[in-house]
Amino acid sequence: MLTSLSVQQFLSELAKGSATPGGGTAAGLAGAQGAALLAMVCNLTIGRKKYADVEEEMQEALDKAERLRLRLMELMEEDTRAFDGVMAAYRLPKDTPEQKAARSAAIQAGLKEATRTPMETLTACVDVLELAPLVVKNGNPNVISDGGAGVLSAHAGMMTAALNVRINLNAIKDEAFVAAQTEQMENFIARGNEAKDRAWVIVSERLGM
Amino acid sequence: MLTSLSVQQFLSELAKGSATPGGGTAAGLAGAQGAALLAMVCNLTIGRKKYADVEEEMQEALDKAERLRLRLMELMEEDTRAFDGVMAAYRLPKDTPEQKAARSAAIQAGLKEATRTPMETLTACVDVLELAPLVVKNGNPNVISDGGAGVLSAHAGMMTAALNVRINLNAIKDEAFVAAQTEQMENFIARGNEAKDRAWVIVSERLGM
Repeated sequence: MLTSLSVQQFLSELAKGSATPGGGTAAGLAGAQGAALLAMVCNLTIGRKKYADVEEEMQEALDKAERLRLRLMELMEEDTRAFDGVMAAYRLPKDTPEQKAARSAAIQAGLKEATRTPMETLTACVDVLELAPLVVKNGNPNVISDGGAGVLSAHAGMMTAALNVRINLNAIKDEAFVAAQTEQMENFIARGNEAKDRAWVIVSERLGM
Repeated sequence: MLTSLSVQQFLSELAKGSATPGGGTAAGLAGAQGAALLAMVCNLTIGRKKYADVEEEMQEALDKAERLRLRLMELMEEDTRAFDGVMAAYRLPKDTPEQKAARSAAIQAGLKEATRTPMETLTACVDVLELAPLVVKNGNPNVISDGGAGVLSAHAGMMTAALNVRINLNAIKDEAFVAAQTEQMENFIARGNEAKDRAWVIVSERLGM
């Protein structure tokens, strides 16, 4: 019973009326799920005579997918911690002008820190997407739908992480920081979209869609 | 520690070289995560004076999202069971012409049954998407990125379920069944895409994208 253990508990926590866990953590789970599904395709291809030609490439892809899966799971936790830091800054006293200034500075620092986590989630999802074309091209055709599922999941993770970067940037006053982060984000999204499109063409063809 | 309990175990199982759990179960999780994120937005809107005007609509949306979340979690399990049924049929003996015919009939029946589950996951994801425009329009703007995350997750769930419907249909010989299921799937996807687009316009506007 997968969900009777604690996927269930996680989803209950997500649904609750508290700010964390939220979309940033959901982005990490989507990315990790994408990496897991690509790893599944590798595992069902490696070690079979029929696919001996691609064995080495698929083993490398598996190692990368597994590292990304573990990193994305860590990022699920880190996102919640980073956001809790921002919330703590908002709770600082604001009775005197000095307190107001200190609180405002703490909020701005917290928001910058909290932007770093979804940006890293975003880049890890792009890394997953960049593994996908090779995996769905070489993978056992019996699990091509699972490869396609991995692509969709990693892409949703990337786009979800981007929403979390954006909502933080909206509240950050340092314009140079905002401009640099926006540009970085857009470059990564372009790479992720390109990899997703390449993978999707292969999935569609192999599924006869 | 969310993932130290068993989101982690689930993702390890997914990554393994066994056919289940796979994309069909991942579709259910994505859909359930989408429903949970919309529920989160409702919960952070309901009971606040500022949003009293939309209280009733948001309470209704919350009830629906919570029912869909629970249903999608059940479908995660059902997908694995349905697929295990197909695998059992493939393992039937095929030594005599009679055995071959019986095995082939069992595989075909199993595949039809196994198509029903991702189709239901798909329709439940469409139901989540159809809740989204109202939730992201009325919801507390501080969690608009979480609402957007819900849209992306439910949409990925719908598309992932569709891959699983398609790979089963590819192996089903009953052409009338295949045609009817394909048409049904395409109608649901069109509805889901339409709802997603409506919700996304609102998310983009409220996030200033």
